[in-house]
Amino acid sequence: MTDRPETPLLDRVTTPADLKQFSDAELVQLAHELRAETISAVSETGGHLGAGLGVVELTVALHHVWDAPRDKIIWDVSHQCYPHKILTGRRDRIRTLRQKDGLSGFTKRSESPYDPFGAAHSSTSISAALGFAVARDLGGLCDTGHGDAIAVIGDGAMSAGMAFEAMNNAGHLKKRLIVILNDNEMSIAPPVGALSSYLSRLYAGEPFQELKAAAKGAVSLLPGPFQEGAKRAKEMLKGMTVGGTLFEELGFSYVGPIDGHDMDQLLPVLRTVKARATGPILIHVTTTKGKGYAPAEAARDGGHATARFDVLTGKQIKAPSNAPSYTRVFADALLEEAARDDKICAITAAMPDGTGLNLFAERYPSRCFDVGIAEQHAVTFSAGLAAGGMKPFCALYSTFLQRGYDQVVHDVALQRLPVRFPIDRAGLVGADGATHAGAYDIAYLANLPGFVVMAAADEAELKHMVATAAAHDEGPIAFRFPRGEGQGVEMPERGQVLDIGKGRMVQEGARVAILSFGTRLGEVLRASEALRARGVTPTVADARFAKPLDEALILELAASHEALITIEEGAVGGFGSHVAQLLSDHAVFDRGLKFRSMVLPDIFIDQASPADMYAVAGMNAADIEAKVLDVLGVAQIGDKRA
Amino acid sequence: MTDRPETPLLDRVTTPADLKQFSDAELVQLAHELRAETISAVSETGGHLGAGLGVVELTVALHHVWDAPRDKIIWDVSHQCYPHKILTGRRDRIRTLRQKDGLSGFTKRSESPYDPFGAAHSSTSISAALGFAVARDLGGLCDTGHGDAIAVIGDGAMSAGMAFEAMNNAGHLKKRLIVILNDNEMSIAPPVGALSSYLSRLYAGEPFQELKAAAKGAVSLLPGPFQEGAKRAKEMLKGMTVGGTLFEELGFSYVGPIDGHDMDQLLPVLRTVKARATGPILIHVTTTKGKGYAPAEAARDGGHATARFDVLTGKQIKAPSNAPSYTRVFADALLEEAARDDKICAITAAMPDGTGLNLFAERYPSRCFDVGIAEQHAVTFSAGLAAGGMKPFCALYSTFLQRGYDQVVHDVALQRLPVRFPIDRAGLVGADGATHAGAYDIAYLANLPGFVVMAAADEAELKHMVATAAAHDEGPIAFRFPRGEGQGVEMPERGQVLDIGKGRMVQEGARVAILSFGTRLGEVLRASEALRARGVTPTVADARFAKPLDEALILELAASHEALITIEEGAVGGFGSHVAQLLSDHAVFDRGLKFRSMVLPDIFIDQASPADMYAVAGMNAADIEAKVLDVLGVAQIGDKRA
Repeated sequence: MTDRPETPLLDRVTTPADLKQFSDAELVQLAHELRAETISAVSETGGHLGAGLGVVELTVALHHVWDAPRDKIIWDVSHQCYPHKILTGRRDRIRTLRQKDGLSGFTKRSESPYDPFGAAHSSTSISAALGFAVARDLGGLCDTGHGDAIAVIGDGAMSAGMAFEAMNNAGHLKKRLIVILNDNEMSIAPPVGALSSYLSRLYAGEPFQELKAAAKGAVSLLPGPFQEGAKRAKEMLKGMTVGGTLFEELGFSYVGPIDGHDMDQLLPVLRTVKARATGPILIHVTTTKGKGYAPAEAARDGGHATARFDVLTGKQIKAPSNAPSYTRVFADALLEEAARDDKICAITAAMPDGTGLNLFAERYPSRCFDVGIAEQHAVTFSAGLAAGGMKPFCALYSTFLQRGYDQVVHDVALQRLPVRFPIDRAGLVGADGATHAGAYDIAYLANLPGFVVMAAADEAELKHMVATAAAHDEGPIAFRFPRGEGQGVEMPERGQVLDIGKGRMVQEGARVAILSFGTRLGEVLRASEALRARGVTPTVADARFAKPLDEALILELAASHEALITIEEGAVGGFGSHVAQLLSDHAVFDRGLKFRSMVLPDIFIDQASPADMYAVAGMNAADIEAKVLDVLGVAQIGDKRA
Repeated sequence: MTDRPETPLLDRVTTPADLKQFSDAELVQLAHELRAETISAVSETGGHLGAGLGVVELTVALHHVWDAPRDKIIWDVSHQCYPHKILTGRRDRIRTLRQKDGLSGFTKRSESPYDPFGAAHSSTSISAALGFAVARDLGGLCDTGHGDAIAVIGDGAMSAGMAFEAMNNAGHLKKRLIVILNDNEMSIAPPVGALSSYLSRLYAGEPFQELKAAAKGAVSLLPGPFQEGAKRAKEMLKGMTVGGTLFEELGFSYVGPIDGHDMDQLLPVLRTVKARATGPILIHVTTTKGKGYAPAEAARDGGHATARFDVLTGKQIKAPSNAPSYTRVFADALLEEAARDDKICAITAAMPDGTGLNLFAERYPSRCFDVGIAEQHAVTFSAGLAAGGMKPFCALYSTFLQRGYDQVVHDVALQRLPVRFPIDRAGLVGADGATHAGAYDIAYLANLPGFVVMAAADEAELKHMVATAAAHDEGPIAFRFPRGEGQGVEMPERGQVLDIGKGRMVQEGARVAILSFGTRLGEVLRASEALRARGVTPTVADARFAKPLDEALILELAASHEALITIEEGAVGGFGSHVAQLLSDHAVFDRGLKFRSMVLPDIFIDQASPADMYAVAGMNAADIEAKVLDVLGVAQIGDKRA
């Protein structure tokens, strides 16, 4: 741990109102201190570093110019909100970021009135801000007055369809609305050089109702060398429109690009916008991800996410791992299948590293597609690929697949197209908290006709499921696996193609059968060990498939045991519910089977370690043990969960 | 019924290849005949008329220039596909459109090789076409060769985010891909007058690699009056970019707009594109919805959807209705609530008429928002409105709410924002078939923490639920109701606010309790009548809530009956599954309760009348009666379902 930075100005800030006292020059110094504090905090907690560092000046400028919480500053995705949290009364807890009972790594309405709209998934901010703007004009929140709505959205997030939908609607409604495009990769609108910064400075000094006029008259205001007749004017005007026309066609005024690390550009532009804006306006700000911290700036991803690290060297402090991550096992297994079958291709929605498909992209660049933050398109593009004779693996996190749900139903399931869905981050995910939980995919996929839905119990099973998916050409197939390390089991040399709809017996026992779907199997086996000491040996089976169910296995377990317990890393409506449906259809309940289904509880579970989160969910070994004893009516000595 | 039209040229067409034989002049005549045949067919079947009439010439031109099924013509939404079906071997069945066992009203892969990608929801065509284009270049479908992928998409569909996502990705990949923007409302890119058509004609005669150069040189090619120095040139160049820049910034070449009813424009442009296109190209075609049929052209919606009609007058032939539609009851009830509470506002995604919100928009225009085909935005915009102190009713069809599922989870449920979701078209919907079934909303909403999920058993209940939703400020609340007419029950003068999570007893009986969620209640009561004759009087209850469940009612029914049967108009994972979870958690199954859950079966059900579709589903009165007799072990005389 290094010493805390010196922060004399920041120490005087308790709420954003305290920023009003500072001169422009002091704000520059404040930003410097805020950056140092952010680096220091994240070095202790780990988390999203680069995004926050990129918006330090913007955060200071926004809170200086506007008046939160009356004005609503909405951070898109909001992994860049750490500096914002430091300025909005949460500095004393900033070193609890992403920890159990600590601050969320994202904005959160329940955490602070300075977080008017929570986020974590991308591209929601413009829609939300427009909602606030319209509500304001309709007399909503009369008590807190008529504040501005300001969305801060990255260029990557701008590629998602819902951002476009929101811009399209905002341009139509013409309400006063401020969108700040935080452009750190130039992926949407390339900067257009000298003319553009000239116009930015010009804009900052002019009333906005005159912006259009100013732009039209700009040619005559330009310095001499630009005045070279029609041809030159044509090029310049073309240049002008490149930067802003896309937004202007959607009904926004456009300002920019301006340097988001230069307070001398930021402050006058924001002040002018605040004073003069009438309708929707987009301020195009260019920033550098990881700005001001050399190790982050040097990183390929701008220091996107990090473990705890040493501030001086930037070196990350990680515990050694005992087993490969599920993500890595998936990625390697897919590479092996792709080596044998050139029809296999892979699709990611802006998550090449997170899904492990960066490896695929290196090896088979022509067969790997990063479509941007665009899950709807990712799914239907995959459906088109499948209809065109390819074998697409559309690799998304469980929580993000929700973005493409209609496409899964309408384009994939209805047409029974053989799209393969590797679903990463299934179940509870740890530090990213409730917004990233993969809780619903079993329920929302397993009731789609013709779908095959699998869950891997360990990393060897995952390898088999990759092979199974590669071989399955009859319709859609999904397999889910969690974040984090595998169980450390021995890996098969090659993945085997599993029989569709067949589970496997893991352990023969008596009285109670536990049927596991997914990686709770490890906890089930630990519970089983403990139960032996109590004289109970459960039968344990790995269902492998939520759809189609292994009906023979399930009915046999039900027939030969007093009790049947299902467990899955998902909410009600999924595997256990399908088992219950099967049992009721077969009149098994009529005979008095003791049936229990262990699912994620009906609450959103805040960030902590996955083990701690599953403790909250009541789905660890001790909980399973207690459930077995309870269902069998065996007296429990004390409560292990206390 | 009027006489069939004379169609000498059309009579010579069995497959699209037959169109190659015709001269350009004959193609004009063929289009005329195709239009007459389309009108004649829809006058018998009802269906989507205006959209098809708008693309008659385009359909003929596409099938003349390209070679389906080797080339993949993908109709977005595909309600405009009737002329396409007539030309692609389905003329003999065109008068079975949307009927039981007849042709689907949409494209459908299982129906014809000329339908490479089915649709019904909007804005999927570009993603799918890109998938085909990429698959082609990767060697997919080697057997059928390397055809073109052509997406035909309306300007309305272009407002959906996924179309933008697809354009963004297509522009990046630079594959040869043809997108035809069928612009019949000018909502995206307004035509830019003389310059634009001049350029269109110019483009059609020039190689496409020279398009940009041609555009740059266009000024000097323009007729005299346009040549008026820099100021004028500036305006013209601005005009040029208005039409195409949005698409060009996304990496597409742009051609248009051209008149989609003028074969002399369509044919040369399409031929040139086919011969010369290298990367992605967008052809902007302007058409008139309902073109060539006066009653459709004169209608406000261009004759979008129609019942059977008289060809000469255009007058629709409808059966008289006995009860108001659920949609109308919802709309009227919401108006009443809105009159009492000025915080109530309404959101629709391009369905003002379908949701009944056209009435709201007339009465309270400032509180009604049509956001376009943009369900993702609709949901999060509503969340922003709720966070801003309003009471938004986000009115979507069940099947389209799937488009906003992640937003429901991430922006509404996680933040417990009081967004109201009136869910129309719940359950099976009739002529629109499987793509429009509202089968999954119970399952995908009822497992979200903090959500309230209701279903109306009849139109009076719907009115109560509107009042209940209006009064519920504690979190999100959804209420579902079906397409079609109500049950004809007496309507209350004013909607009552229901107790959250409380069902109601409908009929006291013995041995078996039937717990209904939604409008199957009518069938349950009919079944009950029939059962009385067999000596069985079931207890009948209306659950009203799938979440929170009326636990006391359910446990009481389970305790006092030998059997409990749930029924809902939805797939497994919903209401019945939540009841099963409750019963298992309370160890009720241990005692041997005969539990059954009647849900939609694990198949996609093709179009027919709703009653016929529910017969396929096994959820009509006769099926309920049989289920009761079966569960009670009462011998059945014959099988009523035969």
